[in-house]
Amino acid sequence: MSTAGQVIKCKAAVAWEAAKPLSIEEIEVAPPKKGEVRIKLFATGVCHTDAYTMSGKDPEGLFPVIFGHEGGGVVESVGEGVTSVQPGDHVIPLYTPECRECKFCKSGKTNLCSVIRATQGQGLMPDGTSRFTCKGKQIFHYMGCSTFSEYTVVAEISVAKIDNSAPLDKVCLLGCGVTTGYGAVTNTAKVEAGSTVAVFGLGGVGLSVIQGAKAVGAKKIIGIDINTSKEQVARKFGLTDFVNPKDHPDKPIQQVIIDMTDGGVDYSFECIGNVDLMRAGIECTHKGWGTSVIIGVAASGQEIKTRPFQLVTGRVWKGSAFGGVKGRTELPGYVQRYQKGELDIDTYVTHTLPLTEINKAFEVMKEGTCIRAVILLNQ
Amino acid sequence: MSTAGQVIKCKAAVAWEAAKPLSIEEIEVAPPKKGEVRIKLFATGVCHTDAYTMSGKDPEGLFPVIFGHEGGGVVESVGEGVTSVQPGDHVIPLYTPECRECKFCKSGKTNLCSVIRATQGQGLMPDGTSRFTCKGKQIFHYMGCSTFSEYTVVAEISVAKIDNSAPLDKVCLLGCGVTTGYGAVTNTAKVEAGSTVAVFGLGGVGLSVIQGAKAVGAKKIIGIDINTSKEQVARKFGLTDFVNPKDHPDKPIQQVIIDMTDGGVDYSFECIGNVDLMRAGIECTHKGWGTSVIIGVAASGQEIKTRPFQLVTGRVWKGSAFGGVKGRTELPGYVQRYQKGELDIDTYVTHTLPLTEINKAFEVMKEGTCIRAVILLNQ
Repeated sequence: MSTAGQVIKCKAAVAWEAAKPLSIEEIEVAPPKKGEVRIKLFATGVCHTDAYTMSGKDPEGLFPVIFGHEGGGVVESVGEGVTSVQPGDHVIPLYTPECRECKFCKSGKTNLCSVIRATQGQGLMPDGTSRFTCKGKQIFHYMGCSTFSEYTVVAEISVAKIDNSAPLDKVCLLGCGVTTGYGAVTNTAKVEAGSTVAVFGLGGVGLSVIQGAKAVGAKKIIGIDINTSKEQVARKFGLTDFVNPKDHPDKPIQQVIIDMTDGGVDYSFECIGNVDLMRAGIECTHKGWGTSVIIGVAASGQEIKTRPFQLVTGRVWKGSAFGGVKGRTELPGYVQRYQKGELDIDTYVTHTLPLTEINKAFEVMKEGTCIRAVILLNQ
Repeated sequence: MSTAGQVIKCKAAVAWEAAKPLSIEEIEVAPPKKGEVRIKLFATGVCHTDAYTMSGKDPEGLFPVIFGHEGGGVVESVGEGVTSVQPGDHVIPLYTPECRECKFCKSGKTNLCSVIRATQGQGLMPDGTSRFTCKGKQIFHYMGCSTFSEYTVVAEISVAKIDNSAPLDKVCLLGCGVTTGYGAVTNTAKVEAGSTVAVFGLGGVGLSVIQGAKAVGAKKIIGIDINTSKEQVARKFGLTDFVNPKDHPDKPIQQVIIDMTDGGVDYSFECIGNVDLMRAGIECTHKGWGTSVIIGVAASGQEIKTRPFQLVTGRVWKGSAFGGVKGRTELPGYVQRYQKGELDIDTYVTHTLPLTEINKAFEVMKEGTCIRAVILLNQ
């Protein structure tokens, strides 16, 4: 029996207020309006960005809200005018949409589609309302995705249609972490074969930078992390050298990297959100051509700093969001590469949990052995 | 009668100590050693970098010294093994050499040849000695050029051979200011036709950025300066909009630019050396693709700052030294373009003075009407 056009009651993890565990609740999900898609989710990753907003430190955080932005699901129904997907299509929701019509999409220079940015930042659908209610209260959307729910509604431009045979409990990670790191290497930095690369932070994003760097033929890939347990899995992805800053208490980490590489690396990537390491990131690159890419999201109000001489002598400082990837156009290709065995996603999934144990997922995330916890939905 | 192989006595402007006027002295210039070239100079520009080191604020400044790095002259004699130039060749000395053999020169990514950097920074020739003496004292070289002298000695790799028919009292400015601004547009930023551009500081370098931006077809070129007298000459070079920050006391200058350009310029250039304007430079560029180039040299110890969000949302922060230009390879082409009337240099020369009045050149430099003062030598 079709649920199209009807309000769906389902389970979701609701964050009623900041810095509190999520509550598994029965919520109501309204039908998709014009230009919207309702998705039945089967899996979602749990990302540090969810934890950051959940903590209450994100000044733009809104409550009550349904978090989650790394999902995989199947289209349940579509709103008026939706033509790019239909019920039954397998999809990955996108926190960076791709309208293909705004000046950003048409520029050919960026993936930062801006057309629904304002409402997405307000936790609402493009028409300025929410599709979620719980116990009579409106619940906010999160990053245009809200994947910690059995059903969600997103804008059509925020949906990447993928191959129906791909396992959603793996390819859901293409909704954020894997793509963010890999794309920063191939789209943003455009690392060449034979390059030297430094990666600050060996979480899911950092490991994806390593995987991307290996894929393009980097010859030396240095990983920097204070958690030594990350070394082993990082080597599986292509790490050649591991550096624990704690082993060099008297030397700035940028100098350690410079000394290892005859003047600095060709490319560096900051995957933590620490402004001091962002500085180390630019300063550990080689004079004349070193490029450093900021991927990590720093806490509100923090600033990056360096001497301008670092840039005048040829270094380039840039950043990357969602790996510079245009989701609707590029994610189907990422899924195909996973299916062909060219892209490893399975290794990231160290924990799999049901929705009822989602708070445990946030706990294991703090453990060194966890790369990504995937929550299974509608099981 | 040839002077080759002999010590030459000539006039030079010597800086005996910091923050004092230059003294016109008779100095001795030793013959060029192996791999060196002695040049009879006919003209030299006076640049803010000379004034900075002269002031004593440059922590790497050495005294006594002969300043000047924007010269034009004729090869008087060459040392052993020199093959790329011969007596009679017209040349421009280079503070950024081009050896064509070091890893920087071979990288294809930078003009920052490093092979004589250490000795150049110590005010000495590559063998670790000076060719200048005065009143029995050794005088330091400056930036590998020392063009405030009737004769100088530079490394062969620091000499760009140019067309003998080009007027040295004009093309000497290709030794620094004109090339630095123009090259930052074409080599470093690679500004495309139709772009919007903001230029902070309308001195010789800023005007050259404008000239370069117009040459590549930028559609909107905004100049920012607190000296309104700069507007008129800037319009001659291609300025379309002039902004005086003093006219916007309640609005950060980056916001003024953003409001003028529907979200920010495509490219910005800082040509002053003010770290606050470097910040304005990156923050006034457009989300998604804005690129800001630092050209100005900040005072020692100063740092650039911004929120990392500026870069994560697609802006690129870079720098440029000598316009990214490889002097020996590219300056002959700049000279040709000047000779064909495609590159304006004449407009920069607002003052022409004999060596005896060089201190006056530093005074007029502070006046709004001065772009470049050129000192004539050996007249």
